[in-house]
Amino acid sequence: KNYRIALLPGDGIGSEVMEAAWPVLQTVAERQGFSLEGDWLPWSCDYYLKHGTMMPADGVEQLRAFDAIYLGAVGLPATVPDHVSLRELLLAIRQGLDLSVNARPHRLLAGVKGPLRTDRPFDILCIRENTEGEYAGAGGRVHRGGELEVAVETAIFTRAGVERVLRHGFEQARLRGGKLASVTKSNAQRHSMVFWDEMTDRVAADYPDVAVTRYHVDAIAARMITHPETLDVVVASNLFGDILTDIGAAIQGGLGFAASANINPAGGVPGMFEPVHGSAPDIMGLGLANPLATLWAGALMLRHLGEIAAAEALMAAIEKVTATGAGTPDMGGDLSTTQLAAAVTAAL
Amino acid sequence: KNYRIALLPGDGIGSEVMEAAWPVLQTVAERQGFSLEGDWLPWSCDYYLKHGTMMPADGVEQLRAFDAIYLGAVGLPATVPDHVSLRELLLAIRQGLDLSVNARPHRLLAGVKGPLRTDRPFDILCIRENTEGEYAGAGGRVHRGGELEVAVETAIFTRAGVERVLRHGFEQARLRGGKLASVTKSNAQRHSMVFWDEMTDRVAADYPDVAVTRYHVDAIAARMITHPETLDVVVASNLFGDILTDIGAAIQGGLGFAASANINPAGGVPGMFEPVHGSAPDIMGLGLANPLATLWAGALMLRHLGEIAAAEALMAAIEKVTATGAGTPDMGGDLSTTQLAAAVTAAL
Ligand SMILES: CC(C)[C@H](C(=O)O)[C@@H](O)C(=O)O
Ligand SMILES: CC(C)[C@H](C(=O)O)[C@@H](O)C(=O)O
Repeated sequence: KNYRIALLPGDGIGSEVMEAAWPVLQTVAERQGFSLEGDWLPWSCDYYLKHGTMMPADGVEQLRAFDAIYLGAVGLPATVPDHVSLRELLLAIRQGLDLSVNARPHRLLAGVKGPLRTDRPFDILCIRENTEGEYAGAGGRVHRGGELEVAVETAIFTRAGVERVLRHGFEQARLRGGKLASVTKSNAQRHSMVFWDEMTDRVAADYPDVAVTRYHVDAIAARMITHPETLDVVVASNLFGDILTDIGAAIQGGLGFAASANINPAGGVPGMFEPVHGSAPDIMGLGLANPLATLWAGALMLRHLGEIAAAEALMAAIEKVTATGAGTPDMGGDLSTTQLAAAVTAAL
Repeated sequence: KNYRIALLPGDGIGSEVMEAAWPVLQTVAERQGFSLEGDWLPWSCDYYLKHGTMMPADGVEQLRAFDAIYLGAVGLPATVPDHVSLRELLLAIRQGLDLSVNARPHRLLAGVKGPLRTDRPFDILCIRENTEGEYAGAGGRVHRGGELEVAVETAIFTRAGVERVLRHGFEQARLRGGKLASVTKSNAQRHSMVFWDEMTDRVAADYPDVAVTRYHVDAIAARMITHPETLDVVVASNLFGDILTDIGAAIQGGLGFAASANINPAGGVPGMFEPVHGSAPDIMGLGLANPLATLWAGALMLRHLGEIAAAEALMAAIEKVTATGAGTPDMGGDLSTTQLAAAVTAAL
């Protein structure tokens, strides 16, 4: 079997982690008897400087032809403002392909010492709404630059949008521990978040076997630090999911480990798989970037393609390496990006 | 000198922590040669069940007559929905008195072991916008209950609103380490948050002696866990400040320690001082509540009233007790709410 993968290295360390991770994935595929065919697409801030857009006008349409999208990182604020580069590439793909679910696993890999004193293992799957809500982009400004200036930003939640991400969360909860945390801020945001609470009740009625707990975003943010072992599947809005998954990344040892699957549960379009970290221009070109988040994202991609054995082989190899204490400088190790990726290949 | 204080125990453990903390404050005052005269106001969910509102129609006006407001906690969702009780009492006071700044200190008290492995001491002052932004309450719903239902929630940022909280942050940064972190999500929210970034630049021009760093809310949430010692004054919007200060509470040992000052930097109205924790109905009436957050909030109140020596005496007594390892169950101790408060009085 052959899969066609769109490779989007993007900006900054994006190309470093992608160039390191991609050969590892190809080796995994080969060992498992299938092949991965990659198309490198140069869409990025560099592309913007040449063409005035982050990707071709039919970029999202081009992506539909692939089996999956594998992305490094987007953004180079010294050249293009983030709110342009991110909205026009990363968010445009998420929204354009209706990748309504952003799934992010948070647990400590073997041998990795996180920042928390607790030694109780945790295993959180964050399911983030990925196409609307606080990222709708709606809003505007009046009296620009003047004393009376006002900016408004409108979060938009649709029934279908909230329902599909909740439903995916409940399905996952069923496959895992049977526990779901629904995150809102309904004590302060009475329109959007009270609606989210109501939708949670409606969808929960179809899943009597799943135990639901409601948390306010501030409370669950704290709980991820004080009692992460009490959480399992966490479903949150676009913005809340963004914040909670960076907390998840922190407690799992840092952004060097956090992987992300952007998927459309209805199928029919490719999913997009990426590390949670950004383009980190401050360390770009130095070989310091940790490729594990990108590799883990690769494992999520293989799993989503149905190549479960390959996904498991890759995760096992990653943890075989982390268990030895080897790693990039953010892990307290002295390997470079490519050396760490090579170690994972060797462990396959 | 005599100060008139409005005492608002509110709901749940609110009255327990207030009844424990208030005598301690009175003792401090006595020792320092001034007096505190308290007026207990029963505004709460109980009050709502009797009167149909959380406070009298002229409640905010009544509060103006006091020198300060000392509040326990609001909310008892089994009787009144949170979005009613909180908005009509807590948020109504913050917004009604234009208490535009919510200042929350985060550091480990002597002897307290937080959840982080790091042993580098941190001392973060979070300055949260407190009257507008994501808590504006603007928005609505269409097609309620139907397939086409949509909820919108509009965040509103005014120039004056953003400027005054930033300015307060810069003033505090000047008095402290000369460092300020400004928090946005301008890579995804291009109206409100790009405006916040612009306002940060404008206000920063008046404070060339303060070093400004911009963070996205997800990144600084992670940083508070991985490198809290690198942060000093953190200025954030209403919602982002809410989330970050619960993270601050978590890393300082839990909500049992987190205190909050709601103030109007322009003066002319009383400030409101409260623990960050809520009414915790699950432990109400059991004597389990930690009174230290409320006592610390009392110290912030004394400082704001100009009674610096009293504020310092109170904090010193609190830390004399925490240094011994004594505390309520959340601190790993076996004291009750009133016993811990009594220990602080004894240490004065
Ligand atoms: C870069 C940014 C727009 C993005 C987001 O907020 O979604 C990132 O933080 C993420 O979590 O994937
Ligand atoms: C109870 C809630 C409305 C409140 C807030 O979000 O402001 C609380 O969490 C706080 O931080 O004071």
